[in-house]
Amino acid sequence: MQPSFIKNKFPKIILGSGSPRRKELLEKMGLDFKIHSLDIDESYPASIPLNKIATYISQIKMKHLSTFYEKSCLLITADTVVRYKNEVLGKPLDPNQSIEMLKKLVGKTHIVTTACALKYKEKEIVFSEDTKVHFKQLNDDLLSYYIQNYQALDKAGSYGIQDWIGMIGVEKIIGSYTNVVGLPTSRLYEKIIEIAE
Amino acid sequence: MQPSFIKNKFPKIILGSGSPRRKELLEKMGLDFKIHSLDIDESYPASIPLNKIATYISQIKMKHLSTFYEKSCLLITADTVVRYKNEVLGKPLDPNQSIEMLKKLVGKTHIVTTACALKYKEKEIVFSEDTKVHFKQLNDDLLSYYIQNYQALDKAGSYGIQDWIGMIGVEKIIGSYTNVVGLPTSRLYEKIIEIAE
Repeated sequence: MQPSFIKNKFPKIILGSGSPRRKELLEKMGLDFKIHSLDIDESYPASIPLNKIATYISQIKMKHLSTFYEKSCLLITADTVVRYKNEVLGKPLDPNQSIEMLKKLVGKTHIVTTACALKYKEKEIVFSEDTKVHFKQLNDDLLSYYIQNYQALDKAGSYGIQDWIGMIGVEKIIGSYTNVVGLPTSRLYEKIIEIAE
Repeated sequence: MQPSFIKNKFPKIILGSGSPRRKELLEKMGLDFKIHSLDIDESYPASIPLNKIATYISQIKMKHLSTFYEKSCLLITADTVVRYKNEVLGKPLDPNQSIEMLKKLVGKTHIVTTACALKYKEKEIVFSEDTKVHFKQLNDDLLSYYIQNYQALDKAGSYGIQDWIGMIGVEKIIGSYTNVVGLPTSRLYEKIIEIAE
Protein backbone atom coordinates (compact mmCIF):
# COMPACT_ATOMS: atom_id res chain seq x y z
CA MET A 1 0.00 0.00 0.00
CA GLN A 2 1.22 3.49 -0.85
CA PRO A 3 1.48 6.18 1.83
CA SER A 4 -1.60 7.85 0.26
CA PHE A 5 -3.67 4.79 1.29
CA ILE A 6 -2.53 5.24 4.87
CA LYS A 7 -3.23 8.98 4.75
CA ASN A 8 -6.78 8.37 3.47
CA LYS A 9 -7.47 5.62 5.97
CA PHE A 10 -6.26 7.51 9.03
CA PRO A 11 -7.19 11.20 9.05
CA LYS A 12 -5.24 11.63 12.28
CA ILE A 13 -2.07 9.79 13.32
CA ILE A 14 -0.44 10.52 16.69
CA LEU A 15 3.14 9.54 17.53
CA GLY A 16 3.41 9.34 21.30
CA SER A 17 7.12 10.14 21.51
CA GLY A 18 9.22 13.24 21.94
CA SER A 19 12.23 11.64 20.24
CA PRO A 20 13.43 13.69 17.25
CA ARG A 21 14.87 10.46 15.77
CA ARG A 22 11.45 8.75 15.80
CA LYS A 23 9.83 11.83 14.29
CA GLU A 24 12.37 11.82 11.45
CA LEU A 25 11.90 8.09 10.77
CA LEU A 26 8.11 8.34 10.65
CA GLU A 27 8.41 11.31 8.28
CA LYS A 28 10.73 9.32 6.04
CA MET A 29 8.06 6.58 5.95
CA GLY A 30 5.89 9.13 4.17
CA LEU A 31 3.30 9.62 6.92
CA ASP A 32 1.57 12.78 8.18
CA PHE A 33 1.22 12.81 11.96
CA LYS A 34 1.21 14.88 15.11
CA ILE A 35 3.63 14.52 18.02
CA HIS A 36 2.45 14.00 21.58
CA SER A 37 5.41 13.87 23.96
CA LEU A 38 4.82 11.65 26.98
CA ASP A 39 6.38 12.22 30.34
CA ILE A 40 5.72 9.00 32.19
CA ASP A 41 7.47 6.80 34.69
CA GLU A 42 9.45 4.25 32.65
CA SER A 43 10.15 1.87 35.51
CA TYR A 44 9.08 -1.77 35.23
CA PRO A 45 8.54 -4.70 37.59
CA ALA A 46 11.68 -6.74 38.24
CA SER A 47 9.75 -9.88 37.28
CA ILE A 48 9.55 -8.92 33.58
CA PRO A 49 11.97 -10.84 31.33
CA LEU A 50 14.61 -8.53 29.81
CA ASN A 51 13.37 -9.13 26.25
CA LYS A 52 9.84 -8.01 27.23
CA ILE A 53 10.70 -4.70 28.92
CA ALA A 54 10.38 -2.56 25.78
CA THR A 55 7.01 -4.18 25.05
CA TYR A 56 5.83 -3.49 28.60
CA ILE A 57 6.86 0.18 28.49
CA SER A 58 5.40 0.76 25.01
CA GLN A 59 2.07 -0.54 26.36
CA ILE A 60 2.25 1.73 29.43
CA LYS A 61 2.86 4.63 27.06
CA MET A 62 -0.13 3.59 24.93
CA LYS A 63 -2.40 3.34 27.97
CA HIS A 64 -1.46 6.91 28.85
CA LEU A 65 -1.62 8.29 25.28
CA SER A 66 -5.02 6.76 24.52
CA THR A 67 -6.69 8.75 27.31
CA PHE A 68 -6.18 11.92 25.24
CA TYR A 69 -7.63 10.86 21.85
CA GLU A 70 -10.73 9.63 20.05
CA LYS A 71 -10.79 6.01 18.92
CA SER A 72 -10.72 7.11 15.28
CA CYS A 73 -7.10 8.24 15.66
CA LEU A 74 -4.23 5.89 14.90
CA LEU A 75 -1.97 6.01 17.95
CA ILE A 76 1.65 4.83 17.92
CA THR A 77 4.02 4.49 20.88
CA ALA A 78 7.49 2.95 21.05
CA ASP A 79 10.22 2.12 23.50
CA THR A 80 13.86 1.19 22.90
CA VAL A 81 15.95 -0.87 25.30
CA VAL A 82 19.66 -1.71 25.09
CA ARG A 83 20.83 -4.87 26.76
CA TYR A 84 24.09 -6.66 27.18
CA LYS A 85 24.12 -10.13 28.70
CA ASN A 86 21.74 -10.00 31.66
CA GLU A 87 21.71 -6.27 32.08
CA VAL A 88 19.48 -3.55 30.69
CA LEU A 89 21.20 -0.24 29.95
CA GLY A 90 18.69 2.59 30.23
CA LYS A 91 19.26 6.32 29.91
CA PRO A 92 22.33 7.32 31.96
CA LEU A 93 21.79 9.73 34.84
CA ASP A 94 25.11 11.54 34.53
CA PRO A 95 28.35 11.56 32.47
CA ASN A 96 30.03 9.04 34.79
CA GLN A 97 27.23 6.56 34.22
CA SER A 98 27.51 7.25 30.48
CA ILE A 99 31.17 6.26 30.46
CA GLU A 100 30.48 3.14 32.51
CA MET A 101 27.74 2.07 30.09
CA LEU A 102 29.87 2.66 27.01
CA LYS A 103 32.77 0.74 28.56
CA LYS A 104 30.44 -2.25 28.84
CA LEU A 105 29.48 -2.02 25.17
CA VAL A 106 32.80 -1.46 23.36
CA GLY A 107 34.58 -4.46 21.88
CA LYS A 108 31.38 -6.51 22.13
CA THR A 109 27.98 -7.23 20.58
CA HIS A 110 24.82 -6.07 22.36
CA ILE A 111 21.12 -6.22 21.54
CA VAL A 112 18.81 -3.29 20.88
CA THR A 113 15.09 -4.00 21.18
CA THR A 114 12.45 -1.55 20.04
CA ALA A 115 8.81 -2.33 20.79
CA CYS A 116 5.87 -0.52 19.17
CA ALA A 117 2.25 -0.38 20.26
CA LEU A 118 -0.47 0.62 17.77
CA LYS A 119 -4.09 1.42 18.60
CA TYR A 120 -7.01 2.17 16.25
CA LYS A 121 -10.69 1.79 17.06
CA GLU A 122 -11.01 -1.47 19.03
CA LYS A 123 -7.80 -2.92 17.66
CA GLU A 124 -4.38 -3.03 19.32
CA ILE A 125 -1.13 -4.43 17.96
CA VAL A 126 2.10 -4.74 19.90
CA PHE A 127 5.32 -6.12 18.46
CA SER A 128 9.04 -5.85 19.05
CA GLU A 129 12.19 -6.32 17.05
CA ASP A 130 15.81 -7.09 17.99
CA THR A 131 18.97 -5.83 16.26
CA LYS A 132 22.48 -6.95 17.17
CA VAL A 133 25.06 -4.15 17.26
CA HIS A 134 28.82 -4.69 17.39
CA PHE A 135 31.05 -1.91 18.68
CA LYS A 136 34.77 -2.04 18.11
CA GLN A 137 37.16 -1.42 20.99
CA LEU A 138 37.34 2.33 21.78
CA ASN A 139 39.62 3.80 24.44
CA ASP A 140 38.45 5.98 27.35
CA ASP A 141 39.79 9.08 25.62
CA LEU A 142 37.35 8.59 22.72
CA LEU A 143 34.45 7.73 25.02
CA SER A 144 35.06 10.92 27.04
CA TYR A 145 35.26 12.92 23.85
CA TYR A 146 31.85 11.57 22.82
CA ILE A 147 30.21 12.22 26.20
CA GLN A 148 31.56 15.78 26.28
CA ASN A 149 30.59 16.70 22.73
CA TYR A 150 27.34 14.86 22.06
CA GLN A 151 24.02 14.34 23.80
CA ALA A 152 24.36 10.91 25.37
CA LEU A 153 22.16 11.37 28.43
CA ASP A 154 18.83 11.14 26.60
CA LYS A 155 19.68 7.85 24.91
CA ALA A 156 19.24 4.25 26.01
CA GLY A 157 22.68 2.66 26.41
CA SER A 158 24.19 6.15 26.28
CA TYR A 159 24.79 6.29 22.54
CA GLY A 160 23.10 7.23 19.28
CA ILE A 161 24.08 5.02 16.35
CA GLN A 162 23.54 8.03 14.04
CA ASP A 163 26.01 10.12 16.10
CA TRP A 164 29.79 10.39 15.84
CA ILE A 165 30.35 7.34 18.03
CA GLY A 166 28.13 5.26 15.76
CA MET A 167 30.07 6.45 12.71
CA ILE A 168 33.49 5.56 14.06
CA GLY A 169 32.62 2.78 16.50
CA VAL A 170 29.88 0.54 15.10
CA GLU A 171 31.54 -2.05 12.88
CA LYS A 172 28.57 -4.22 12.13
CA ILE A 173 24.89 -4.70 12.81
CA ILE A 174 22.64 -7.67 12.20
CA GLY A 175 18.99 -6.69 11.71
CA SER A 176 17.15 -3.44 11.10
CA TYR A 177 19.22 -0.25 11.35
CA THR A 178 16.23 2.02 11.97
CA ASN A 179 15.25 -0.25 14.87
CA VAL A 180 18.45 0.87 16.62
CA VAL A 181 17.69 4.53 15.83
CA GLY A 182 14.23 4.16 17.38
CA LEU A 183 11.60 2.55 15.13
CA PRO A 184 11.55 -0.79 13.24
CA THR A 185 10.21 1.05 10.19
CA SER A 186 9.74 -1.87 7.80
CA ARG A 187 7.64 -3.93 10.22
CA LEU A 188 5.88 -0.83 11.55
CA TYR A 189 4.69 -0.05 8.00
CA GLU A 190 3.27 -3.58 7.70
CA LYS A 191 1.52 -3.30 11.06
CA ILE A 192 -0.04 0.06 10.18
CA ILE A 193 -1.56 -1.55 7.06
CA GLU A 194 -2.65 -4.56 9.13
CA ILE A 195 -4.48 -2.45 11.70
CA ALA A 196 -6.21 -0.48 8.89
CA GLU A 197 -7.79 -3.60 7.41
CA MET B 1 42.48 9.38 18.21
CA GLN B 2 40.05 12.26 18.52
CA PRO B 3 38.92 14.24 15.46
CA SER B 4 41.17 17.11 16.66
CA PHE B 5 44.22 14.87 16.07
CA ILE B 6 43.09 14.33 12.49
CA LYS B 7 42.41 18.05 12.01
CA ASN B 8 45.90 18.94 13.28
CA LYS B 9 47.60 16.27 11.22
CA PHE B 10 45.90 17.10 7.94
CA PRO B 11 45.44 20.81 7.31
CA LYS B 12 43.59 20.00 4.11
CA ILE B 13 41.31 17.03 3.46
CA ILE B 14 39.61 16.60 0.07
CA LEU B 15 36.65 14.29 -0.52
CA GLY B 16 36.58 13.43 -4.20
CA SER B 17 32.84 12.81 -4.44
CA GLY B 18 29.78 14.86 -5.27
CA SER B 19 27.48 12.57 -3.26
CA PRO B 20 25.54 14.50 -0.61
CA ARG B 21 25.30 11.25 1.40
CA ARG B 22 29.10 10.87 1.54
CA LYS B 23 29.47 14.54 2.52
CA GLU B 24 27.03 14.06 5.39
CA LEU B 25 28.78 10.90 6.62
CA LEU B 26 32.23 12.49 6.60
CA GLU B 27 30.83 15.50 8.48
CA LYS B 28 29.30 13.18 11.08
CA MET B 29 32.76 11.62 11.51
CA GLY B 30 33.83 15.02 12.81
CA LEU B 31 36.15 15.97 9.95
CA ASP B 32 36.69 19.28 8.16
CA PHE B 33 37.11 18.86 4.42
CA LYS B 34 36.46 20.27 0.99
CA ILE B 35 34.41 18.63 -1.75
CA HIS B 36 35.82 18.02 -5.23
CA SER B 37 33.17 16.46 -7.48
CA LEU B 38 34.60 14.17 -10.12
CA ASP B 39 33.06 13.62 -13.51
CA ILE B 40 34.88 10.60 -14.83
CA ASP B 41 34.10 7.56 -16.91
CA GLU B 42 33.09 4.83 -14.45
CA SER B 43 33.38 1.94 -16.86
CA TYR B 44 35.66 -0.99 -16.06
CA PRO B 45 37.28 -3.87 -17.96
CA ALA B 46 35.09 -6.97 -18.20
CA SER B 47 37.98 -9.02 -16.81
CA ILE B 48 37.72 -7.50 -13.31
CA PRO B 49 36.07 -9.77 -10.71
CA LEU B 50 32.75 -8.35 -9.49
CA ASN B 51 34.00 -7.89 -5.92
CA LYS B 52 36.94 -5.76 -7.18
CA ILE B 53 35.00 -3.29 -9.33
CA ALA B 54 34.45 -0.72 -6.56
CA THR B 55 38.15 -0.89 -5.69
CA TYR B 56 39.11 -0.38 -9.34
CA ILE B 57 36.83 2.65 -9.77
CA SER B 58 37.89 4.25 -6.46
CA GLN B 59 41.51 4.02 -7.69
CA ILE B 60 40.63 5.56 -11.06
CA LYS B 61 38.95 8.39 -9.16
CA MET B 62 42.05 8.82 -6.98
CA LYS B 63 44.35 8.93 -9.99
CA HIS B 64 42.24 11.75 -11.40
CA LEU B 65 41.77 13.64 -8.11
CA SER B 66 45.47 13.55 -7.21
CA THR B 67 46.40 15.55 -10.33
CA PHE B 68 44.75 18.61 -8.75
CA TYR B 69 46.37 18.67 -5.29
CA GLU B 70 49.65 18.92 -3.40
CA LYS B 71 50.96 15.78 -1.71
CA SER B 72 50.39 17.34 1.71
CA CYS B 73 46.62 17.03 1.26
CA LEU B 74 44.75 13.96 2.45
CA LEU B 75 42.69 12.80 -0.52
CA ILE B 76 39.73 10.43 -0.21
CA THR B 77 37.72 8.81 -3.01
CA ALA B 78 35.04 6.12 -2.85
CA ASP B 79 32.85 4.00 -5.05
CA THR B 80 29.77 1.95 -4.22
CA VAL B 81 28.62 -1.08 -6.20
CA VAL B 82 25.45 -3.13 -5.76
CA ARG B 83 25.55 -6.73 -6.89
CA TYR B 84 23.15 -9.60 -6.93
CA LYS B 85 24.39 -13.04 -7.89
CA ASN B 86 26.66 -12.54 -10.90
CA GLU B 87 25.36 -9.15 -11.91
CA VAL B 88 26.45 -5.63 -11.01
CA LEU B 89 23.64 -3.07 -10.76
CA GLY B 90 24.98 0.39 -11.54
CA LYS B 91 23.11 3.66 -11.79
CA PRO B 92 19.95 3.16 -13.86
CA LEU B 93 19.66 5.11 -17.12
CA ASP B 94 15.89 5.66 -17.00
CA PRO B 95 12.80 4.84 -14.89
CA ASN B 96 12.21 1.56 -16.72
CA GLN B 97 15.70 0.36 -15.85
CA SER B 98 15.08 1.48 -12.26
CA ILE B 99 12.01 -0.72 -11.98
CA GLU B 100 13.83 -3.68 -13.53
CA MET B 101 16.70 -3.31 -11.06
CA LEU B 102 14.42 -3.04 -8.05
CA LYS B 103 12.44 -6.09 -9.19
CA LYS B 104 15.69 -8.06 -9.07
CA LEU B 105 16.40 -6.94 -5.51
CA VAL B 106 13.04 -7.32 -3.72
CA GLY B 107 12.42 -10.48 -1.73
CA LYS B 108 16.14 -11.27 -1.75
CA THR B 109 19.52 -10.48 -0.22
CA HIS B 110 22.11 -8.57 -2.23
CA ILE B 111 25.60 -7.26 -1.52
CA VAL B 112 26.68 -3.63 -1.38
CA THR B 113 30.43 -3.01 -1.68
CA THR B 114 31.99 0.37 -1.01
CA ALA B 115 35.69 0.83 -1.72
CA CYS B 116 37.73 3.80 -0.49
CA ALA B 117 41.10 5.05 -1.69
CA LEU B 118 43.21 7.34 0.54
CA LYS B 119 46.33 9.21 -0.50
CA TYR B 120 48.72 11.30 1.62
CA LYS B 121 52.33 12.15 0.77
CA GLU B 122 53.83 8.95 -0.67
CA LYS B 123 51.30 6.67 1.00
CA GLU B 124 48.22 5.10 -0.51
CA ILE B 125 45.64 2.87 1.14
CA VAL B 126 42.77 1.14 -0.66
CA PHE B 127 40.22 -1.05 1.08
CA SER B 128 36.66 -2.22 0.55
CA GLU B 129 33.84 -3.48 2.70
CA ASP B 130 30.76 -5.62 1.99
CA THR B 131 27.31 -5.32 3.58
CA LYS B 132 24.46 -7.74 2.95
CA VAL B 133 21.05 -6.09 2.50
CA HIS B 134 17.75 -7.95 2.57
CA PHE B 135 14.70 -6.37 0.92
CA LYS B 136 11.27 -7.74 1.62
CA GLN B 137 8.88 -8.45 -1.26
CA LEU B 138 7.40 -5.19 -2.61
CA ASN B 139 4.82 -5.07 -5.39
CA ASP B 140 5.20 -3.10 -8.64
CA ASP B 141 2.81 -0.44 -7.39
CA LEU B 142 5.18 0.42 -4.51
CA LEU B 143 8.26 0.30 -6.74
CA SER B 144 6.60 2.70 -9.21
CA TYR B 145 5.62 4.99 -6.35
CA TYR B 146 9.26 5.10 -5.23
CA ILE B 147 10.64 5.76 -8.71
CA GLN B 148 8.12 8.54 -9.31
CA ASN B 149 8.60 10.29 -5.99
CA TYR B 150 12.28 9.85 -5.13
CA GLN B 151 15.60 10.28 -6.87
CA ALA B 152 16.56 6.77 -7.87
CA LEU B 153 18.55 7.51 -11.02
CA ASP B 154 21.68 8.78 -9.27
CA LYS B 155 22.03 5.70 -7.06
CA ALA B 156 23.75 2.36 -7.62
CA GLY B 157 21.12 -0.38 -7.66
CA SER B 158 18.44 2.31 -8.04
CA TYR B 159 17.73 2.80 -4.34
CA GLY B 160 18.87 4.79 -1.32
CA ILE B 161 18.66 2.85 1.94
CA GLN B 162 18.04 6.17 3.72
CA ASP B 163 15.03 6.90 1.46
CA TRP B 164 11.40 5.85 1.79
CA ILE B 165 12.03 2.49 0.10
CA GLY B 166 14.79 1.73 2.62
CA MET B 167 12.47 2.61 5.49
CA ILE B 168 9.62 0.36 4.41
CA GLY B 169 11.48 -2.27 2.39
CA VAL B 170 14.80 -3.14 4.05
CA GLU B 171 14.12 -5.77 6.68
CA LYS B 172 17.66 -6.61 7.67
CA ILE B 173 21.29 -5.84 6.98
CA ILE B 174 24.44 -7.68 7.98
CA GLY B 175 27.47 -5.40 8.21
CA SER B 176 28.01 -1.66 8.25
CA TYR B 177 24.95 0.49 7.56
CA THR B 178 26.94 3.56 6.51
CA ASN B 179 28.75 1.37 3.98
CA VAL B 180 25.41 1.00 2.16
CA VAL B 181 24.79 4.76 2.35
CA GLY B 182 28.21 5.42 0.77
CA LEU B 183 31.18 5.21 3.18
CA PRO B 184 32.36 2.45 5.56
CA THR B 185 32.84 5.10 8.26
CA SER B 186 34.26 2.94 11.05
CA ARG B 187 37.04 1.42 8.92
CA LEU B 188 37.61 4.69 7.09
CA TYR B 189 38.33 6.39 10.44
CA GLU B 190 40.91 3.69 11.24
CA LYS B 191 42.56 4.05 7.84
CA ILE B 192 42.79 7.85 8.14
CA ILE B 193 44.68 7.39 11.42
CA GLU B 194 46.84 4.67 9.83
CA ILE B 195 47.88 6.88 6.91
CA ALA B 196 48.70 9.74 9.34
CA GLU B 197 51.23 7.67 11.24
